Amino acid sequence: MKDKREIVIGLLGLGTVGSQVYHALTEKGDALSEKTGFTYRIKRILVRNPDKARQAKPPRELFVTQANEILEDPEIKLVIEVLGGLQPAAAHIEKALEHGKSVVTANKGVMATHGEKLLMLASKHNADLFFEASVAGAIPILRPLQESMATDRILQIVGIVNGTTNFILSQMTHEGKTYEEALKEAQKLGYAEPDPTFDVTGMDAAYKIAILASLAFGHYAKGEEVLHEGIQGISSLDILHAKELGYRIKLIAKAQCEKDGLSLLVAPTLIPPNHPLYNVEGPYNAILVRGERLGDIMFYGQGAGGVPTSTAIVSDVVHAAKNIVLGTSGKSIPKLDNPISLRSPESLLSRFYLRIQVEDRPGTLASIAQVFAEEEASFSAVLQRENTARLTDILFLTHTVREGSLQRALLRVRKLPSVKEISAIFRVES
Amino acid sequence: MKDKREIVIGLLGLGTVGSQVYHALTEKGDALSEKTGFTYRIKRILVRNPDKARQAKPPRELFVTQANEILEDPEIKLVIEVLGGLQPAAAHIEKALEHGKSVVTANKGVMATHGEKLLMLASKHNADLFFEASVAGAIPILRPLQESMATDRILQIVGIVNGTTNFILSQMTHEGKTYEEALKEAQKLGYAEPDPTFDVTGMDAAYKIAILASLAFGHYAKGEEVLHEGIQGISSLDILHAKELGYRIKLIAKAQCEKDGLSLLVAPTLIPPNHPLYNVEGPYNAILVRGERLGDIMFYGQGAGGVPTSTAIVSDVVHAAKNIVLGTSGKSIPKLDNPISLRSPESLLSRFYLRIQVEDRPGTLASIAQVFAEEEASFSAVLQRENTARLTDILFLTHTVREGSLQRALLRVRKLPSVKEISAIFRVES
Repeated sequence: MKDKREIVIGLLGLGTVGSQVYHALTEKGDALSEKTGFTYRIKRILVRNPDKARQAKPPRELFVTQANEILEDPEIKLVIEVLGGLQPAAAHIEKALEHGKSVVTANKGVMATHGEKLLMLASKHNADLFFEASVAGAIPILRPLQESMATDRILQIVGIVNGTTNFILSQMTHEGKTYEEALKEAQKLGYAEPDPTFDVTGMDAAYKIAILASLAFGHYAKGEEVLHEGIQGISSLDILHAKELGYRIKLIAKAQCEKDGLSLLVAPTLIPPNHPLYNVEGPYNAILVRGERLGDIMFYGQGAGGVPTSTAIVSDVVHAAKNIVLGTSGKSIPKLDNPISLRSPESLLSRFYLRIQVEDRPGTLASIAQVFAEEEASFSAVLQRENTARLTDILFLTHTVREGSLQRALLRVRKLPSVKEISAIFRVES
Repeated sequence: MKDKREIVIGLLGLGTVGSQVYHALTEKGDALSEKTGFTYRIKRILVRNPDKARQAKPPRELFVTQANEILEDPEIKLVIEVLGGLQPAAAHIEKALEHGKSVVTANKGVMATHGEKLLMLASKHNADLFFEASVAGAIPILRPLQESMATDRILQIVGIVNGTTNFILSQMTHEGKTYEEALKEAQKLGYAEPDPTFDVTGMDAAYKIAILASLAFGHYAKGEEVLHEGIQGISSLDILHAKELGYRIKLIAKAQCEKDGLSLLVAPTLIPPNHPLYNVEGPYNAILVRGERLGDIMFYGQGAGGVPTSTAIVSDVVHAAKNIVLGTSGKSIPKLDNPISLRSPESLLSRFYLRIQVEDRPGTLASIAQVFAEEEASFSAVLQRENTARLTDILFLTHTVREGSLQRALLRVRKLPSVKEISAIFRVES
């Protein structure tokens, strides 16, 4: 009876997050057992190099260098994957599920690339595949989305899901730093990787919104299907102009489901001061879920870091353990076969912020305004400063307009003789 | 096989929330069945008067006026209680659980008064007792608190859990209304009851923080054990002064667990602008959970209303249904036997806002400051305006001080000859 309630675990990876998970399940394991009624035993840990210095110091005999020693061990019922990267992580998860083992992973890349296949595999083999830690580390969002909000029709998800870019934008907004200075600061504090490409290009956020959208709308979306713009092109000038207009620029991930399909987008966006995401600063994440009946619900917390991420993993481990003991593993795999199509952004409605550099001569504003009017794009705010230079910037905030119309208008505006360049185009959230 | 997956339900009550629940489980029942894999059949509905006009129009033959026709019906596996009020709701829930039926309720009064006994009963009879809708209507907070955050040690919960008072305070802050005007507006819009006592005295918030604290700290706390101050004493003057100092006054419910015990409090509190609760306005609720490892996590959404509340109930119904089908009802009843004691507020540390009315003569400020210094309370801000009247207000923001010390200081300050009255004392959140 005692034995039945012992959960035997294989751990794939022992980096920052893996070490924290090891710590939580062993040194802090007694408290966890007390709370959950099961004991947790990590039987084997996959590492590349057993001799490497690590935060966690498990007994040497736990280390294996071949994944099969875990994936094929019938005593191991639960596999925790914290290797990161696409392969071999995805292949290991697949094999573990095929052997009927439940899997807990923090791997957004794997879930946003091979998630559909892996979840079907889990269902087929009566195993769980949980991935709460893959989106917004500390914030319990995937489970509430699947369970508590499942009875509502979700209309939209709008979130700040990347702490690195949010920290950089906060530094630019509040400390007046340039992009380069803010990035350097983020790297110094450990909020950005030495190579920040994955974060600053919006790719990380794209993976996360794909996972959120898949669960919210029951249609599997891949990370690579998400249109994404990064924050590298944001100048201090736009941060400042946005501020003057009363807005803050955030990197927003958005999934919206309408009759004609699902649109997915990651893009720098102006957020108005009464918006729940306006005050989300620094490395924090927040996800706003708009339900037909529930209205706006926002989840806010730390998006990353070894400790919050490992806590989310341990919470999944406890869930999976409970299902193993009750014999109910694989009974709540999300359905992802809702037949909705991805929409082109051309048909999307949005408000926009435009910064257009022009030669300061009579009639310039009139000619621009004329083009926009003909394309049925109208303005809610226009700002042109007194200026003695030959070139000057005009800022526009549009009313809601179809992106296609805006693009047509901009094509024409670009050709106007007094227009030097379209310096910035950002969406504006309402 | 088909039959086994039909969940037969008894509904206690058919008011605003009950009608919405009926609607969701019947007219919208097909979509729900599609999503959850079960069908839901409401077999009987308890009403006092079958002839009363109602939002929902169930077939007349569903109505019963005797609770036992539901509570003793062996075919009914799940009871939804939306009667409100303490009795007979609590007695009905008790009887349903004794008959092994799972119960879903939105009744905070019952849970914060008889919750411990009812949960033990549920566990004994292998039945579920779910009450997500009892706190912060639309916001999924109780389940994440019990499941996703269960592996962390929770240090503190700070929340805005009453939409009525938050709406009134928002109106006073942003529209410059008096308390009476704001209350009238809230009543007009349906945010406040004709008799607003339960909300404006902080009693409603006290029930909710008791429920949150019970789950977060594993120690059952009753609503009536929570010290609570309401918002009736808040003058427009204090709202204005708080604003000038950069703060907003909110009715804050707070539960804090330290070595020497658990403290529970509902009180008007000044919130600084960088605080996650600062921007929670109007009828919205937000609950900030501070975990040892997870850091700050905030949940934000609509706190009340028939539609959000019913959606939370339906989500609980789906959970309970799943457990009924899997035979796992009653397996996740929270443990509430953690032996911690309630702390007296005397020993609590906090910052305070004080408004003291004095006669404007030399030495007044010095004599007040002297008393506070002797009681080891120091100030982070003092504000006295130029004034031609004989009486003037001095505002103080204290540094962190033990409430006992502050009370001693105030007793002495009151006796100073130039002090007319202590006009306001509010806590300040850091």
